[in-house]
Amino acid sequence: MEFLTSITPAQALKVIGTFPLPSLDREEAPLEHAQGRVLALDIIAREDIPPFARSLVDGYAVKAKDTYGAREGSPSFLLVKGVVAVGEATEAQVGDGEAVSVATGAMVPAGADGVVMEEHTRRAADGVEVTHSVRRREHICFRGEDLKAGEVVLEKGKVLSPFDIGVLAALGVVAVPVYRQVFVGIVSSGNEVVAVDTAPPPGKVRDINAHTVSGLVRMRGCLVRFAGIARDTVEDITEKLSALKGCDMLLLSGGSSKGQSDFMTAAVELLGGKTLFHGLNIKPGKPTVFASLWDKPVFGLPGHPVSCAMVVLRFVLPLVARLRGEKEEVFPRTQAGTLTTNVPSTYGIEEYVRVTVARKENRTSVTPLFAKSSVISTLSRADGYIIVRAGKEGLEAGEEVEVYPLG
Amino acid sequence: MEFLTSITPAQALKVIGTFPLPSLDREEAPLEHAQGRVLALDIIAREDIPPFARSLVDGYAVKAKDTYGAREGSPSFLLVKGVVAVGEATEAQVGDGEAVSVATGAMVPAGADGVVMEEHTRRAADGVEVTHSVRRREHICFRGEDLKAGEVVLEKGKVLSPFDIGVLAALGVVAVPVYRQVFVGIVSSGNEVVAVDTAPPPGKVRDINAHTVSGLVRMRGCLVRFAGIARDTVEDITEKLSALKGCDMLLLSGGSSKGQSDFMTAAVELLGGKTLFHGLNIKPGKPTVFASLWDKPVFGLPGHPVSCAMVVLRFVLPLVARLRGEKEEVFPRTQAGTLTTNVPSTYGIEEYVRVTVARKENRTSVTPLFAKSSVISTLSRADGYIIVRAGKEGLEAGEEVEVYPLG
Repeated sequence: MEFLTSITPAQALKVIGTFPLPSLDREEAPLEHAQGRVLALDIIAREDIPPFARSLVDGYAVKAKDTYGAREGSPSFLLVKGVVAVGEATEAQVGDGEAVSVATGAMVPAGADGVVMEEHTRRAADGVEVTHSVRRREHICFRGEDLKAGEVVLEKGKVLSPFDIGVLAALGVVAVPVYRQVFVGIVSSGNEVVAVDTAPPPGKVRDINAHTVSGLVRMRGCLVRFAGIARDTVEDITEKLSALKGCDMLLLSGGSSKGQSDFMTAAVELLGGKTLFHGLNIKPGKPTVFASLWDKPVFGLPGHPVSCAMVVLRFVLPLVARLRGEKEEVFPRTQAGTLTTNVPSTYGIEEYVRVTVARKENRTSVTPLFAKSSVISTLSRADGYIIVRAGKEGLEAGEEVEVYPLG
Repeated sequence: MEFLTSITPAQALKVIGTFPLPSLDREEAPLEHAQGRVLALDIIAREDIPPFARSLVDGYAVKAKDTYGAREGSPSFLLVKGVVAVGEATEAQVGDGEAVSVATGAMVPAGADGVVMEEHTRRAADGVEVTHSVRRREHICFRGEDLKAGEVVLEKGKVLSPFDIGVLAALGVVAVPVYRQVFVGIVSSGNEVVAVDTAPPPGKVRDINAHTVSGLVRMRGCLVRFAGIARDTVEDITEKLSALKGCDMLLLSGGSSKGQSDFMTAAVELLGGKTLFHGLNIKPGKPTVFASLWDKPVFGLPGHPVSCAMVVLRFVLPLVARLRGEKEEVFPRTQAGTLTTNVPSTYGIEEYVRVTVARKENRTSVTPLFAKSSVISTLSRADGYIIVRAGKEGLEAGEEVEVYPLG
């Protein structure tokens, strides 16, 4: 009998992480559609932002030294030379003993190095009494204090957030250089699988995996092409894979039993591809295949819905991120917490356990959702998953664990 | 001089949290477009999933008791009565001393209460030798073990994840009852503000807020209508607000100084609306206005980009969630960590401090990004923010803090 050649998750991640990927073509996204896209060039500020010193408050632009020592009982008197409205250019100069009235956001005239808040002043004939001192640079956002001309403000590979969009808006970048979106081709397989809009006859079930997998890669900004459900024959799988030749990555779900994954590797090899590993030392998710076809990465995913989803989360999404041109994630997306119960596991195999997370009185507690790998409903209820490493024989209540996100 | 009437964040959240909202109309989303939408009805399973007992492995369906005591050296011999292929209906019955060969995912014949893995068997003439015992219910996913007919499987108000889509696929729900999407109307205001595709003349700056705010509400699944940039006149603001009458929520950014927010409240009142609060005891974000117009919530957001974004994160997005029909978030979206440096703050005012988060050796460290409220680039670099409550005079290095997410 032929068994799967299981490799360790670390070996698998290395094979996947070094799979040679092409650099994606660049395109321009309109600013309003750039969110979530991956930046394809460093963005260098071509101007200072703000482009001039702006007041952060309503008040008076002054020389800070003229206000030193000012108090309610002994105010500084300054001569008011004029007013700068917001949006207005000014040629005014603030000299010693002088002040110019400025609105929030207005240009601060030359010569001033601080703005006294209106609340700290009293209007007097021709002038203003300052009742609180102001520090140098206080209440002013200086030219270039936000973004400086010539500086790299956003790096290539950044997934654009609403705040990055704000930075691009500030600089007037209305056509954003981004990588084109990644196409993920999806095939379901299995003689038992019918389309979701079908009432399954006895012995058959609806296709769950195509939908879950599509959802997961769409969450990461990919476009999905679905080739349909392949019967368990090398011919049908070959045909479905061929229909997705234009995609950047292929995901074949189903193939949960030895026989099925053999059909897939046979189809890949028939098409001139190469199997890179077949079988992973994890639970759930063992019957996973990784191959290269037309120089593109191809995964054979387990048929059990939860196994399939776990393999996508742990092994496929990192490759999706790299394919998209994402720079390595710096923010730690895991969350630490304390196990509420023991978690049994098998020594020598890496196990993934779905968990719920609760936060109470500054403590994060993590509770496993024990269920068979075919039970998709637990994933819908879970907040994340934990990893029990191969070298562990279970975890104990009270242990600190890292919770990985579900997407 | 007229000052803003500041209320506390808690009072503001109460006013916002009790703002009467209509229930949104329901519509049907095709399954492939339902992800991220909000479920408008409880989903009750109309059938058992799986619809029949399925084998979780390749092996032999047996009566578990027939395998008790089986060992490598003294196997149990069972008569093989047949084979069930995956996707096939079977009428077979497993009797005492009998076995039926089953593939992974195949229907388990009646009478069997366990499946022996193929690896734990040896083929013999007419039968099979079982070399390991199997427990009752082992390696079978029983009918209804994932989802039971009549059970509420997904609750109204759930934001649909890829796994929820999987649950809906399992049940054949191809038209998903969801709330219609929320329209958020956005106006920028300020005489100093010009459109992003314009080179700002001296004294003027490009519109950042419309883009950041649009991005934040789009992240939460809203549709955006942008009415343009209003001059600082009651007439222009009135006209822009009127153009957005069909929206579910209105967000007017700009209006950072006292004068500007007065234009907004005047415009709202001219149109028959009512100001609910004007001024918030927070930093940054003080000049925030909340009003009711045409029975819809209207926010006047500060003009400083960071102040504007912080008010959206803390005060607008919870209302967006409620407007969308989202059930209260159960997963704690904050993350705990330890401050690396002191954070000064003003007693009596709630302050929001942007931070970066790093995770090393099982410790999460939180470092403030000190910057003026006009500096949008720090938000683009931040991982989250922390709240320094009004009753605190700063926080100290080593203190445990909660980090709130930026979206």
